[in-house]
Amino acid sequence: MSERYVIGVDYGTLSGRALVVRVSDGAELGSAVHPYPHGVVSDRLPATGEKLPPHWALQVPADYVEVLRTAVPAAVRAAGIEAADVIGIATDFTACTMVPCTADGVPLCDLAEFEARPHAYVKLWRHHAAQGQADRINALAAERQEKWLARYGGFISSEWEFAKGLELLEEDHEVYAAMDRWVEAADWIVWQLCGSYVRNHCSAGYKGILQDGQYPNRDFLAALNPAFVDFVEDKLVQPIGELGGSAGRLTPEAAAWTGLPEGIAVAVGNVDAHVTAAAADALAPGQMVAIMGTSTCHVMNGAELREVPGMCGVVLGGISAGAYGYEAGQSGVGDIFGHYVGMLGGVTHEELTERAATQAVGEHGLVALDWHSGNRSVLVDHDLSGGLVGETLATRPEDVYRALLEATAFGTRTIVETFNAAGVPVTEFVVAGGLMKNRLLMQIYADVLKMPLSVIGSEQGPALGSAIHAAVAAGAYPDVPTAAAVMGRLHRAAYQPIPENSAAYDELFAEYTRLHDYFGRGGNDVMRRLRAIQRAAHTRKASQ
Amino acid sequence: MSERYVIGVDYGTLSGRALVVRVSDGAELGSAVHPYPHGVVSDRLPATGEKLPPHWALQVPADYVEVLRTAVPAAVRAAGIEAADVIGIATDFTACTMVPCTADGVPLCDLAEFEARPHAYVKLWRHHAAQGQADRINALAAERQEKWLARYGGFISSEWEFAKGLELLEEDHEVYAAMDRWVEAADWIVWQLCGSYVRNHCSAGYKGILQDGQYPNRDFLAALNPAFVDFVEDKLVQPIGELGGSAGRLTPEAAAWTGLPEGIAVAVGNVDAHVTAAAADALAPGQMVAIMGTSTCHVMNGAELREVPGMCGVVLGGISAGAYGYEAGQSGVGDIFGHYVGMLGGVTHEELTERAATQAVGEHGLVALDWHSGNRSVLVDHDLSGGLVGETLATRPEDVYRALLEATAFGTRTIVETFNAAGVPVTEFVVAGGLMKNRLLMQIYADVLKMPLSVIGSEQGPALGSAIHAAVAAGAYPDVPTAAAVMGRLHRAAYQPIPENSAAYDELFAEYTRLHDYFGRGGNDVMRRLRAIQRAAHTRKASQ
Repeated sequence: MSERYVIGVDYGTLSGRALVVRVSDGAELGSAVHPYPHGVVSDRLPATGEKLPPHWALQVPADYVEVLRTAVPAAVRAAGIEAADVIGIATDFTACTMVPCTADGVPLCDLAEFEARPHAYVKLWRHHAAQGQADRINALAAERQEKWLARYGGFISSEWEFAKGLELLEEDHEVYAAMDRWVEAADWIVWQLCGSYVRNHCSAGYKGILQDGQYPNRDFLAALNPAFVDFVEDKLVQPIGELGGSAGRLTPEAAAWTGLPEGIAVAVGNVDAHVTAAAADALAPGQMVAIMGTSTCHVMNGAELREVPGMCGVVLGGISAGAYGYEAGQSGVGDIFGHYVGMLGGVTHEELTERAATQAVGEHGLVALDWHSGNRSVLVDHDLSGGLVGETLATRPEDVYRALLEATAFGTRTIVETFNAAGVPVTEFVVAGGLMKNRLLMQIYADVLKMPLSVIGSEQGPALGSAIHAAVAAGAYPDVPTAAAVMGRLHRAAYQPIPENSAAYDELFAEYTRLHDYFGRGGNDVMRRLRAIQRAAHTRKASQ
Repeated sequence: MSERYVIGVDYGTLSGRALVVRVSDGAELGSAVHPYPHGVVSDRLPATGEKLPPHWALQVPADYVEVLRTAVPAAVRAAGIEAADVIGIATDFTACTMVPCTADGVPLCDLAEFEARPHAYVKLWRHHAAQGQADRINALAAERQEKWLARYGGFISSEWEFAKGLELLEEDHEVYAAMDRWVEAADWIVWQLCGSYVRNHCSAGYKGILQDGQYPNRDFLAALNPAFVDFVEDKLVQPIGELGGSAGRLTPEAAAWTGLPEGIAVAVGNVDAHVTAAAADALAPGQMVAIMGTSTCHVMNGAELREVPGMCGVVLGGISAGAYGYEAGQSGVGDIFGHYVGMLGGVTHEELTERAATQAVGEHGLVALDWHSGNRSVLVDHDLSGGLVGETLATRPEDVYRALLEATAFGTRTIVETFNAAGVPVTEFVVAGGLMKNRLLMQIYADVLKMPLSVIGSEQGPALGSAIHAAVAAGAYPDVPTAAAVMGRLHRAAYQPIPENSAAYDELFAEYTRLHDYFGRGGNDVMRRLRAIQRAAHTRKASQ
């Protein structure tokens, strides 16, 4: 019998990547990337040139289809396989990225009557203009002691379905009224592939506040805004598909786009971070997978339901069926290193890393806070900002750089210790994502966490993870963990902690924690006040 | 009657500057600078190539005489005057800079038997190897409740006469035993000019712990080290000359060096910062003169004796006769700006200043601590270090630069408020020194202090101040204040505080103060612990 293949398509922020994977062993045979023609629309609306308000981030849904037309056939060609041997396709997406649609799945921005309306477009995950709505959701939920709030570490994000939905209602009621379905892009692309709308369990749970089969109730919605009362029934409710399940079969139209056989399995949609756990074969309870890039997302299965302070969420079946899937995050990681290198100008990450690598732990005399983008876990406060203590006239750029690397490791240790303390023990730490190539950073994480560090064996973790889900949807494996065990790749304990370094880091971590609690837990709200002072300065300046 | 002239010679850290000044109006007619051939000796002893220990800083006294031979005649030539019309010369020096001498004033390093001995050389003010001795002096003085300790804000510096003297005794007893006199360089150069050793009131008071006519007593010295018991009588005691008084007449030899008339008045020695108050005609009680350069020194007369926490010292007649002269300091100012620019590379102070100047107060969202070189006033803790709070991914280099400028202004306000609270009110703030050319910095100081800022009308403040003292020593004026009123130059209220800015800075200063007290007054000794961690790291590394 000939080999069979699956396609994983990873929809990132700026491009889509297709990867051809062999079902029998997970070998990655060929891939192709297609950048979105419209990229991220944050300045002006393409159709009209209208200037967008601050913190907006839109996308154009036709760009996603173009990835199917270009990157998928290109990947098949690169792999040198026969398209006829492909048995399934699966996708993963950034989240929470939302598409306002008609009942047929047509994005409103594709209708002539709405193409000039910004709210008719896709709201990318990093559209941050719904903070006011999120604040109201959180305040009301806390006041009403809504049970679901603790499942999200106490805070619903402005990036998620309800905040963005309320923003749409309150800012463009016509578009809201014309919208039949408020669809995760993760599900919209699957709808395009198989012709039916199945809502994936992962997005619905983490971003859509679906807990124990229930969404926030009508009383709650009405209290937010009387016109929002029917939001769940009218715009959101949809049959839920389990991860790794089949959403349907590839339509003739989608077969024509992709060059793949009509009728092959199309998997239920999924989220980029969450599929990566399968790619790393790290689905057992206690295996925390950190996808480390500009920011870090942590996903981990746990055997039991616990409330972990400051987590992003816990969803039964949110990572794989039958387990409680936990998610946490660090808002800035690679972004912080990149910003510092940008401030310096003229020196590279590689140079700074090389110089920093010769230092003994603590030699630079510094400790930093990794909050330049705010803090998601465990403080959930985006008004926090960076901090650096210990600089002298002898401090060099590589000293600050190393202190920043370490600060993100301390942030990770804070998350790990919070999970441990909440009764969801982290037994293995697994790294995926672009930052795993920095060996100094990896050693620092191992030393700070005082745990061996495992690393994923793929540079295309999300696409490989999707491919694994395609294989399960196609029936090649009975479930995702079984498929992951064959097709996923993990280098276990690739980095070992060095006891002497770990001992020195214990002291620095104690300093980090003192500063973390002082600035982050109400000891001194200077960061919050500095933001207020900053806003007042901008206002004064604008009025001059 | 023809015009008469005086010469001021300012001995800095790296060079000496001679200035010719007209007695009738203080006009600056010509100047010349001569760099010390040996500069600062901190690496290897020139005579032997011997490697010096860390934190050492020596000088070669012959270099000071060379300034007399070269810069003085060059300044006279540049001024286009007749040397015969010069009626007096005065000098000022860095302090505390100490010369170990024979009874004739010959530096021990000039004797063949001692030229290979590092301790036989001049110990420059910034020789920082006597901290252990200073710590013992402070601990013992506190334990014995020595009355003089409060006159120095509670702390004697490792830079001063007693700490350096004890270091000499304990590290090279032979040189100590061979030393007849332990002489301030400020007095040694006067000794070379007039042939007699007169100890100036300023150095003796601020650096030599001479208070109410008494030095620390024999019991105290014996408790420090039994062999130190005779230090005051054997090495230090000498008739005191008042500032502006005549120490003697120019000797034939010194006349030959300088080309000046034999027998003209030679003024009592003085210290660079302190003479600058005369150059700025700012000798009235309440006029605080800040000499702003790499660090800042604050000098101010006060009408009454008060104990100001964290001041450097208070000396009756220490700035001008009859008034209580107060001194305070900021360890790092221009040094901090320079260090930051050096970290960035490729951008200038001017560029950063220009960009920072367009900002509204508080627009950068940052607050910094100005302790990269430790903190002299008012915390007196050199284990403190820098701090920066509020950085985000949007922070630009000019934002941090401006926050550092502001931090030093907040440090100054802390000093001013401490003086006010201690009953020594600051009624006018006067700036001298190289940093006065940065107009943004000056405006920030005015806004932060909420006071008009006056600036000295000379770019050669110390040399002009010395020239004023020379005029008094020569009898052209009855006293220094009278001479300063004619010859000194002050632009009063050159910068006015902008009320809107001051209001915004009140908020930022409140944040600075909270951080100042938290990190500086025991709320969190993280900076001290980071130094200990750093030392341990160096030790570990060295042992590998």
